[in-house]
Amino acid sequence: MNWADFTAQFPIMVKFIPMADPRLDALYKVARDNDLDAVAFVPGPNFKNIFARDFHLMERPLLVIVPKDGTPVAIVPNLEMTSFGALDFPGAIFDWRDEDGYKSAFTAAANVLPQLANAKRFGLEAQRMRAFEQMALANVFPQAEFVDAHAEISNIRLIKTADEIALLKKAIQISEAALEATLQEVTVGQTEKQIEGILVRHMFALGADGLSFDPIVAAGDNAAQPHATARADYTIKSGDALLIDFGASWMGYNADITRTFFVGEVSDYDRAFYNTVLAANTRGKNVSRAGVTAHDVDDAVQVVLERSQFAQFIRHKTGHGLGLDVHEAPQIMRGNKHVLQAGVVFTIEPGLYREGECGVRIEDDVVVTNDRIECLTTFDRELRIVG
Amino acid sequence: MNWADFTAQFPIMVKFIPMADPRLDALYKVARDNDLDAVAFVPGPNFKNIFARDFHLMERPLLVIVPKDGTPVAIVPNLEMTSFGALDFPGAIFDWRDEDGYKSAFTAAANVLPQLANAKRFGLEAQRMRAFEQMALANVFPQAEFVDAHAEISNIRLIKTADEIALLKKAIQISEAALEATLQEVTVGQTEKQIEGILVRHMFALGADGLSFDPIVAAGDNAAQPHATARADYTIKSGDALLIDFGASWMGYNADITRTFFVGEVSDYDRAFYNTVLAANTRGKNVSRAGVTAHDVDDAVQVVLERSQFAQFIRHKTGHGLGLDVHEAPQIMRGNKHVLQAGVVFTIEPGLYREGECGVRIEDDVVVTNDRIECLTTFDRELRIVG
Repeated sequence: MNWADFTAQFPIMVKFIPMADPRLDALYKVARDNDLDAVAFVPGPNFKNIFARDFHLMERPLLVIVPKDGTPVAIVPNLEMTSFGALDFPGAIFDWRDEDGYKSAFTAAANVLPQLANAKRFGLEAQRMRAFEQMALANVFPQAEFVDAHAEISNIRLIKTADEIALLKKAIQISEAALEATLQEVTVGQTEKQIEGILVRHMFALGADGLSFDPIVAAGDNAAQPHATARADYTIKSGDALLIDFGASWMGYNADITRTFFVGEVSDYDRAFYNTVLAANTRGKNVSRAGVTAHDVDDAVQVVLERSQFAQFIRHKTGHGLGLDVHEAPQIMRGNKHVLQAGVVFTIEPGLYREGECGVRIEDDVVVTNDRIECLTTFDRELRIVG
Repeated sequence: MNWADFTAQFPIMVKFIPMADPRLDALYKVARDNDLDAVAFVPGPNFKNIFARDFHLMERPLLVIVPKDGTPVAIVPNLEMTSFGALDFPGAIFDWRDEDGYKSAFTAAANVLPQLANAKRFGLEAQRMRAFEQMALANVFPQAEFVDAHAEISNIRLIKTADEIALLKKAIQISEAALEATLQEVTVGQTEKQIEGILVRHMFALGADGLSFDPIVAAGDNAAQPHATARADYTIKSGDALLIDFGASWMGYNADITRTFFVGEVSDYDRAFYNTVLAANTRGKNVSRAGVTAHDVDDAVQVVLERSQFAQFIRHKTGHGLGLDVHEAPQIMRGNKHVLQAGVVFTIEPGLYREGECGVRIEDDVVVTNDRIECLTTFDRELRIVG
């Protein structure tokens, strides 16, 4: 179809400025290196990293497709067009209105660029893109194969700049100040939910942009569930572990911190349990440095736990990458041959979980430096009695 | 494969209790009514509606598959198994550990039940499920077709019970009290971001479980972007519109409220602009009742805007369903033949947007009753000067 025919048939295309854009260079490289004809992604951490702005993921699809050699294409809900205009998107934009639905925009997008119309292999940001968006793509590219390129697209963000580290530090600083302020208010008889509310209010009062995730505030047996939800019907009591896993976000960057306290008193057994986790956390920080693998770090941490009297209470790996996403590469786990490089940020968060009784996790955020690591989290790790 | 062979080959299956479970009846009906061999869904509003508990969507897939005639299957990350156990899931559970990855659990799940192994057509909760989960299903069901059954699965939640309405009212009550408290603190010279922070702190101080979404606090030209983000570098000034779109959540139910104020003073033109939106909002509430269509409501609202002097500033439809999800069925828009029934909750949120200048939106949450509607939001709608 020639240009005149195209514009006559697809009046929804409002802007078409093909031009080189260095923001997309890394995506072209992902396509080339992975034998992909195109890469597609949606709002979220990768979108924000590329365009320095973000949009909410919602029921209205907003999607960017970057063919391996040529002009990118965006599919945009009409009501986001003003915001999208601020991106200076260097390609074809197909907006669609609620009353028309999004399918016509996908059809138009698939037909405008010959190199896209013939694409056979798409790499998707598949842990973020929803199935209905993949279905909409499959509908207009029936000959195409879709593969998961989430890791490859996200790895563009793997090495953090000094500016990014500064934003993470700010998020961590807000978080740690909020935690200390919260502990000053914790008393026996409060519910987990009440403590969560106090923590959240302090984070926002201290300037948080948002929450990295809904905080985990879990006491007693609930602390033994790695991803517990705060209960409104359980009041903390003397002898309980109080596990708090939380983080504030700042300019899109997410803190992710866990500390475990004990309420009123602690048994010798629980103290040994706690100190085993602390030893594993310390070991993780001591072995981490540029050149070692994610496997090496997890292995060193797990060995501390496995050789303790509490080996049967291990439930998860050591950690994960951290940045614009709360869980991103590299996964710090056995079997992952990923070699740590300066600028990579990840969590070290060993835990032990005695079902029905008690759980302890101690989580720090670290950045690999040219030498070893810098620990970004500074909140004290020695066993602390609260309430 | 017989049972003994199966359990020998797939030791990861820890629990298998086939039994009738009325919680799944509506899903079996979705499968039957839509010629689906199986329905698959993930944590989120539908999961919570069915199991009265929820899990975070994360990089570790957690998935439930309900074949049209038989035992359901769950794929669960090992570290969630304690929490998952509390569901009394009536079927086969395949848990997987970080070090093994999730693919083996999908393979096992596809092989355990003959009626699932032969499934040809899967209905997915496709606006919630991610592409990588669909890919994992496609990998083990290579012969299957995957279709979007998001609307059908979500429609199980369409008619709200009295208990659900009570929870929504509580979410709205917290939200409205927080808005009034925030307005008492608004002054010229604050940034949008500061006002957002005040609002969020008040919501949590008043007992919110969480936020329905990141609040929109947008003044001046930013209010003209329907989905604006609060700016840290813009201070509100006299004459600005101040649009606040926000909501607290309570027990998973989400308020969604918009009010627009003016800072210090308002021009006659902006007053007429505001009152046009208010008239459309009022019209929407007056025409809504059981038996009319979503189209009818949107049409009546749009006609008010279209017949005004501000018709060129229309940007979006009237509203959307509301409940465990912030945006759910029915979409209140022209062309949607959905007939409103008692118990359906939706938003009425007309808006007008003068790009670069001003935006106004007034959003109420209503429930259809046997008679007409009950407006759940009560915050005053008359033009109000703040700051």
